[in-house]
Amino acid sequence: MPKIVDHDARRREIVEAVWALIARRGLDAVTMRELAAEAGYANGALSGYFRNKDEILQSAFQHAFDATNVRARRAIGEQRGLAALRLLCREIMPLDELRLLEARVVIAFWDRALHDARMAAVHEAVMTTWRAQMHGYLQEARLDGDVTTATPDDTVIDGLLAALMGFQINALFAPAATPERQEAVLDELLGALAP
Amino acid sequence: MPKIVDHDARRREIVEAVWALIARRGLDAVTMRELAAEAGYANGALSGYFRNKDEILQSAFQHAFDATNVRARRAIGEQRGLAALRLLCREIMPLDELRLLEARVVIAFWDRALHDARMAAVHEAVMTTWRAQMHGYLQEARLDGDVTTATPDDTVIDGLLAALMGFQINALFAPAATPERQEAVLDELLGALAP
Repeated sequence: MPKIVDHDARRREIVEAVWALIARRGLDAVTMRELAAEAGYANGALSGYFRNKDEILQSAFQHAFDATNVRARRAIGEQRGLAALRLLCREIMPLDELRLLEARVVIAFWDRALHDARMAAVHEAVMTTWRAQMHGYLQEARLDGDVTTATPDDTVIDGLLAALMGFQINALFAPAATPERQEAVLDELLGALAP
Repeated sequence: MPKIVDHDARRREIVEAVWALIARRGLDAVTMRELAAEAGYANGALSGYFRNKDEILQSAFQHAFDATNVRARRAIGEQRGLAALRLLCREIMPLDELRLLEARVVIAFWDRALHDARMAAVHEAVMTTWRAQMHGYLQEARLDGDVTTATPDDTVIDGLLAALMGFQINALFAPAATPERQEAVLDELLGALAP
């Protein structure tokens, strides 16, 4: 079914072209016409791929998630356990301009997902994926003797995911939430796993 | 200047009447006409107090912050140090229906504040207030011997605020982020302060 494949590929191309514009200006401020122009499409041609701006935002969120995971896989390589857990967390943290832009997409997405069950389900799928990955790394880390805490893995992961989501906010709104300070918090959280 | 005082009081009354409607339905979905009706005003009468929905949202955010602090003060009473720190954190956490509604206002506010410097400044002021309060409680807790960690207070507070902001997201989007699980994370974070 070459047509369907092409359609999905085209949607990805469009999102890759426009997500940063949405992040910088905000979904409300940009028009479908401007998004089409940014992607190099004639006005109106985007509607064949996305019914509205919310659908583009959902794809932009998925794009930020996929990009994070590609970077994390590359950074982790053959590493496992605690080292792999740390690298996954670092890729989710908004530590540079690119990831701060991704955080802006994520925040806009959250606002819409509050009132759209399908978008909320996309967010839950993302969290479920990261949660499963973290569980795997924690199990390895316990085998390696790098994690010795009596705290259940679920609580450890709840704490990590809360801090990682909170960083998306604090890095954008608190000038003091520098990469160094985010990393200091991560060091504390992971350090507490081997008391 | 009785007229000005009256104006501010009226704005507060309006926000108290409408903030939960905004939280439930979303700012985009409600009209100024509906907000006026909810507040018991004639259509158009709200514009004397708020220029637009974003101004109402900013006041709703301030309302959620003020309500949190009123509850925290009441809960803390004469307590100090670690006990007071725990109670402040618990009031910020979305542990019940009321605070989950407040979290919805906060998320909508974040989305707007990304593109509005004045709203972002309001958020920063809120964080600065909580940060100062936490610094005070941590100092007391160190004097009391309840906090003995070598981790600097700034890092402790960065970690607490990240987790507290993350809870606003996770409690709304992850069905597993129950009050019990949020409290387990808080116990871990505070427990790590006296290793």
